[in-house]
Amino acid sequence: MRERRHIDPSDVDLPTLMTAFTDPLRLRIIGILDRNGETPCAAIYHEIGISKSGASHHFRVLRETGVLLSRMSGRDHYACLRREELEKAYPGILDAVLGELRRQASIERERDSPVAK
Amino acid sequence: MRERRHIDPSDVDLPTLMTAFTDPLRLRIIGILDRNGETPCAAIYHEIGISKSGASHHFRVLRETGVLLSRMSGRDHYACLRREELEKAYPGILDAVLGELRRQASIERERDSPVAK
Repeated sequence: MRERRHIDPSDVDLPTLMTAFTDPLRLRIIGILDRNGETPCAAIYHEIGISKSGASHHFRVLRETGVLLSRMSGRDHYACLRREELEKAYPGILDAVLGELRRQASIERERDSPVAK
Repeated sequence: MRERRHIDPSDVDLPTLMTAFTDPLRLRIIGILDRNGETPCAAIYHEIGISKSGASHHFRVLRETGVLLSRMSGRDHYACLRREELEKAYPGILDAVLGELRRQASIERERDSPVAK
């Protein structure tokens, strides 16, 4: 299986990095990785409800903007966020995005909880 | 003169907001407004070295992502960042971007200073 192309966060310019965050589906992938740490890609497709081929463009954008690292283990692909490298190259950017995603997730949980209904 | 369309930051979703930051020219406009506060649009075109028509698409994106407010005063347009409204709608996002733009500007000043040469 061929190795997938990654770009190091320090080689990505700011406008390119920001394209990682311009798609709702990519933000959902980032939110899952934030919550779970390293996650099998298949589990991400399943949670979001998209096919592997539907997700592949978004995973590529996330790898090529330095946001995501993917690796093979056995026959499965795993993905994780490149938190420390991103924080070093672009202090505060990923944290601000993750903070907003957590805030939105918390509002959704609140809204969907039986007590709130 | 017709009023230009603005969108309130609280009506902009996160992926849309992030498109404000995916273009080098828009980031330059944001950097100028961060440094100068409210600025005549003509002065921004001059500093960046683009025509009014070349800049208009970028100003529209910045207005419609809730990042920039423009107003007429006399015969001139002025623009400013919507810092407080953005901070309220998306805490930390604009600050993280501005922090990075200031860091890059500081590196450029350092590089271009006579002492460093």
